[in-house]
Amino acid sequence: MAEPFRLRELTCEAIDDLCVGAAILGTGGGGDPYLGGLLAKRALREHGPVRVLRIEELEDDDFVVCSGNMGAPTVYIEKLIGAGQPVHALRALEAHIGRRFTAVMAFEAGGSNSAIPVWVAAETGLPLVDADGQGRAFPEIQMVSFGACGVSASPMAMADERGNTVILNVMDNRRSEQIARAVAVQMGARASFAAYPMTKAELERGAIAGTTSLATRLGHAVRRTGATGGDVFAAILDAFRHTHYGAARILFRGKIADVERTTRDGWAIGSVVINAIGTEDRLRIEFQNENLVATRGDRIEAIVPDLICILDSDQGLPITTERVRFGLRVTVIGIGAPAPLRTPEALSLFGPRAFRLPYDYTPLDR
Amino acid sequence: MAEPFRLRELTCEAIDDLCVGAAILGTGGGGDPYLGGLLAKRALREHGPVRVLRIEELEDDDFVVCSGNMGAPTVYIEKLIGAGQPVHALRALEAHIGRRFTAVMAFEAGGSNSAIPVWVAAETGLPLVDADGQGRAFPEIQMVSFGACGVSASPMAMADERGNTVILNVMDNRRSEQIARAVAVQMGARASFAAYPMTKAELERGAIAGTTSLATRLGHAVRRTGATGGDVFAAILDAFRHTHYGAARILFRGKIADVERTTRDGWAIGSVVINAIGTEDRLRIEFQNENLVATRGDRIEAIVPDLICILDSDQGLPITTERVRFGLRVTVIGIGAPAPLRTPEALSLFGPRAFRLPYDYTPLDR
Repeated sequence: MAEPFRLRELTCEAIDDLCVGAAILGTGGGGDPYLGGLLAKRALREHGPVRVLRIEELEDDDFVVCSGNMGAPTVYIEKLIGAGQPVHALRALEAHIGRRFTAVMAFEAGGSNSAIPVWVAAETGLPLVDADGQGRAFPEIQMVSFGACGVSASPMAMADERGNTVILNVMDNRRSEQIARAVAVQMGARASFAAYPMTKAELERGAIAGTTSLATRLGHAVRRTGATGGDVFAAILDAFRHTHYGAARILFRGKIADVERTTRDGWAIGSVVINAIGTEDRLRIEFQNENLVATRGDRIEAIVPDLICILDSDQGLPITTERVRFGLRVTVIGIGAPAPLRTPEALSLFGPRAFRLPYDYTPLDR
Repeated sequence: MAEPFRLRELTCEAIDDLCVGAAILGTGGGGDPYLGGLLAKRALREHGPVRVLRIEELEDDDFVVCSGNMGAPTVYIEKLIGAGQPVHALRALEAHIGRRFTAVMAFEAGGSNSAIPVWVAAETGLPLVDADGQGRAFPEIQMVSFGACGVSASPMAMADERGNTVILNVMDNRRSEQIARAVAVQMGARASFAAYPMTKAELERGAIAGTTSLATRLGHAVRRTGATGGDVFAAILDAFRHTHYGAARILFRGKIADVERTTRDGWAIGSVVINAIGTEDRLRIEFQNENLVATRGDRIEAIVPDLICILDSDQGLPITTERVRFGLRVTVIGIGAPAPLRTPEALSLFGPRAFRLPYDYTPLDR
């Protein structure tokens, strides 16, 4: 298939595009695009652009690490992540392993977690790999494509804003999630981490390639089309052509009629009901940080790991879970998950049953 | 002052003495002496006796680590600690630091936590240092005498029974406690740890010397005197002569009339009321795992960090917090804390105010 445009470097000017696009891929989660972008832009202004490498451009002996934040998004909004915190996690992991990393990448695609590795790359001078471990956002650390290929999250380092670090050597990625989550809470619910140290071969086997480029392209399409009055949703759907993702289509248009949202076990859990305008038709979306399933009466319109994105109908900007509210006019798009998210191993980690939904995975593009 | 007998080695036969004596020093906490003893005895039977060194016998370049368990004592009773778990913590810390330890010691004096380092010493072939960091038991990791001398708990390793390890590099020992406690809960409330790596100079400055010998002597006195029908309490008080501890005396004799105990924030918190037999006199003891303060009407008879030990009146055996119950005939003894536990720095870590008691420290031997 024809290969779409790929980034060669990330400049300060591209960060708003990256963050808006990554927040679309974040399917309701993945953190606030504005704050993540601020931190990345500050680092790029200070250190200059970041070199972006495709997985196939890596050397066999390259050693890559995922960089990101974990904790409650609400806390990030109140108190910014500390200067150098994610770099500190990376350096602590290097010191523990006794080996330097040669590139950094995103753990997930999301408004904040796509920007953090850009910040780290700018500060360390390391290149950024054009990929991530989900091609979307998921709420837990074991929910990554390379985890489904047998890659361990450990050794993994966490850092708080005071320079404290914690290293995990945990065999099972679900246990890593449990322990890391407890540590993140003690770190004030806003910990930075460096995890899933990987070789090129492991990335080739498990990563979702090209998602940094895709997010930037998506965000650019939304922002440019919005500015010129074009059809922003056509531009969004078009950005997924010739990618690893499945079919992308508009699922629904309407007005948010009902939002139920509770915070349970550290997650934002709830549902949104969207009424079509002028008909009885309605779409219901259940979420746990990220949107999990969209139903229309008895029919499942889209279900995890396929992407369910709620965008504002005017400009196509993504609306994260914590910002959905009554009265917003929204357009919901569904995007078929990339193939590595659909294997039996992957579905056992982040298919519907992993979220205790009483459904099997039914692909959007069936 | 005349130096009392010091251990040169610990054999399987001495373990019951060590554990009973350490449980007296544990002042209600410090873990179950029977289970801790079982594990140490198994290791000694397999590997032979453990060499015991005084602090002054260490070399300047010796590198010592504290070994112990943290978590809920109730869980230890239900499910024994895993084979090799505390050794695993020690080895993980060595690998992280890149240096081997040359001796091991107890973190606190307690029925279980005095036995764990014996087990580790037997399995690793390392000598055991005749000392600990409290001369008694305390509920939290920052509550140690060498902590009051500026020694950091970090780097610190924790291990669960499956071989998972977590390394902490945390600047403040109180934060270490918070993070380690959260990890211990995720490790099933029974984690082993290796912490407070120290040089000889740091031990000289901060450790409570001779407590392994003292515990063994104490336990021996109780067990031998109990067997021969002698005055067990006179023997106990006598064991503290010529030690770093202050005055030791009997505070009260009576029958337990009332026990209030709740589990809050992972601690056993509550109080015991003991009625004198034939009079209106009564002693009230407040505890948080360990006994904190003993009052008789308005008068404070003894208060933390001084030791308040509840012993059964027949045999002088220690009764831990989780086993105090209505109707037991008990003798309460008070022992003045060793001098390093009475400095302003020490009292800020584990004096009455550190436990939110509305009193200042009033020494038993004032």
